[in-house]
Amino acid sequence: MKNKQWILKKFPVGEISEGDLVLEENEVASLSDSQILIRNIYLSLDPANRGWMSGQKSYVDAMQTGDIMRGGTIGIIEESKNEKFKKGEIVNCMGGWQQFCVSDGKGVRQIPLGTGFPLDSYMSVLGMTGLTAYFGLLDITDPQPGETLVVSAAAGAVGSIVCQIGKIKGCKVVGIAGSDTKCKWLVDELGIDSAINYKSENVRQRLKETCPDGIDIYFENVGGSITEAVLTRMNINGRISLCGLISGYNAESIVPGPAWGNLLIKRIKLKGFIVFDYFKRYMEAYQDITQWLKDDKIKYKNHIIPGIENAGEAIRKLFSGENEGKLIVQISEEPN
Amino acid sequence: MKNKQWILKKFPVGEISEGDLVLEENEVASLSDSQILIRNIYLSLDPANRGWMSGQKSYVDAMQTGDIMRGGTIGIIEESKNEKFKKGEIVNCMGGWQQFCVSDGKGVRQIPLGTGFPLDSYMSVLGMTGLTAYFGLLDITDPQPGETLVVSAAAGAVGSIVCQIGKIKGCKVVGIAGSDTKCKWLVDELGIDSAINYKSENVRQRLKETCPDGIDIYFENVGGSITEAVLTRMNINGRISLCGLISGYNAESIVPGPAWGNLLIKRIKLKGFIVFDYFKRYMEAYQDITQWLKDDKIKYKNHIIPGIENAGEAIRKLFSGENEGKLIVQISEEPN
Repeated sequence: MKNKQWILKKFPVGEISEGDLVLEENEVASLSDSQILIRNIYLSLDPANRGWMSGQKSYVDAMQTGDIMRGGTIGIIEESKNEKFKKGEIVNCMGGWQQFCVSDGKGVRQIPLGTGFPLDSYMSVLGMTGLTAYFGLLDITDPQPGETLVVSAAAGAVGSIVCQIGKIKGCKVVGIAGSDTKCKWLVDELGIDSAINYKSENVRQRLKETCPDGIDIYFENVGGSITEAVLTRMNINGRISLCGLISGYNAESIVPGPAWGNLLIKRIKLKGFIVFDYFKRYMEAYQDITQWLKDDKIKYKNHIIPGIENAGEAIRKLFSGENEGKLIVQISEEPN
Repeated sequence: MKNKQWILKKFPVGEISEGDLVLEENEVASLSDSQILIRNIYLSLDPANRGWMSGQKSYVDAMQTGDIMRGGTIGIIEESKNEKFKKGEIVNCMGGWQQFCVSDGKGVRQIPLGTGFPLDSYMSVLGMTGLTAYFGLLDITDPQPGETLVVSAAAGAVGSIVCQIGKIKGCKVVGIAGSDTKCKWLVDELGIDSAINYKSENVRQRLKETCPDGIDIYFENVGGSITEAVLTRMNINGRISLCGLISGYNAESIVPGPAWGNLLIKRIKLKGFIVFDYFKRYMEAYQDITQWLKDDKIKYKNHIIPGIENAGEAIRKLFSGENEGKLIVQISEEPN
């Protein structure tokens, strides 16, 4: 059986360019004892992918050239020699950029069926991005009613959920995004208070107008000049949840951060986090998010690109901001 | 009665230079109802003073040119028309760079006499710098036995107390300071594990050697390249207590900070603080520090410069690192 796989051929320098990732066709290995064969259905594309391609160890081991490109997936078990898994079960794992994945079951989790939610929602609002938004906002910043929350990359997979949880918690929410369409979606559909188009507006000036009482909480997805602008308007005892720094991921050398003077004078608490740190508390988040979805308090948008062949092109959309919602590649059909 | 006073004539650009602060002689005003007259004995010189001279509002109101230079003092009440204060009491307040201070009693606290500790210790280990060290380390970083603590400006008034509280809490303590004499004092007299002379040694290399298990806690007093070096060796879930950034205080424009990538990947918690935030918990710190002094677990060094005339020259020592211990100007004699 053939298996199309994207292979990391070179560590990208700056933007990912053609030739860094190459699509190859290989044979699927036959299963050893305790292994399972998964047919990948959905592949998650995330800003963090860029860091995995840097050749540098971070919170996960560094990828090597020649590796199958790493990625989170949802798939269906086609064959099992592992008693913990049955043929036909739907699972979530790091299945990689390929059609089929052979696994020993480590890190593979069954997704409950019959919840009424579409399968691709488990790649976003009910998957890692929803969990990231939940813990990054609630655990790190403890938002209180009436506080002002600013979210960067607000129309993104994580940011859009953060915005809505902020509203649920009674915050005034201001989102920063990269197009008028995204800003309109944030305000009109998701119900946040204001949105700022950082590509066409003066962020510093607009933050002044939209956050007259200063900023209590900043959910950081981007870094760079947006962060500088936010820091100058933070209130005393403000909190910053440091989730991502996408503006710098394609940089060819390390970009300095903002001066720490504002963090000191304003007694800011800043905390970096990775969603995996909250593994033991995932159920808590699922319960809340599921309820909010049922109550129509949370909306989400998945941007599904069909065909594994298109993954290499699709990931570039993330960094240019062309995606509308959580970026997912559909590798094969869902089961009926 | 004459009163020598240092007046802020110009906001310094870069280093404080002659003419920014000018010594003048004025008359002491006679007391109105509810006022007190304090004769200043000791004047505290601190890195934060530079920020107060910037013309920018921070955690306190901005100073204006023409103001008496702001500073923490210990003094004796010479005359009182306020029922809360009696002649002869020793008090701590923001008495300013002058021989006499007229106050309405706001922010003036009596210092208990007969404790057995010298009066100038209330300007350092039993004053703001001791409290700063105590809360900045214990409240923000929660040091655990066996963890590695790195302290910058380690031989300074705050840093040297942080180092010793770190040892009391069972940490491995590595200090960074600016001379071999200071480093020797830290290791031989204060008993920390290692010291690095940042002026003559490669900090990055020496941190590698002295912190083989990485750095769990960083007590930040300086900013700049030392911070960069520390960040690269921080462990996952590390904590940073952001107390000061002296390396940038004389900068003529804002110096960028380190990239936030390490804060994210390593899930660092960073918190800025100002000791005044802990006002309600001061007694807790006094009790512990007093006990540690009695048990000879904490040593301190005050660098006392006699004569109010010398304050203008003395403050420059702070930024060149020429001071040995807490920098204090003695304005008048202690009572017998």
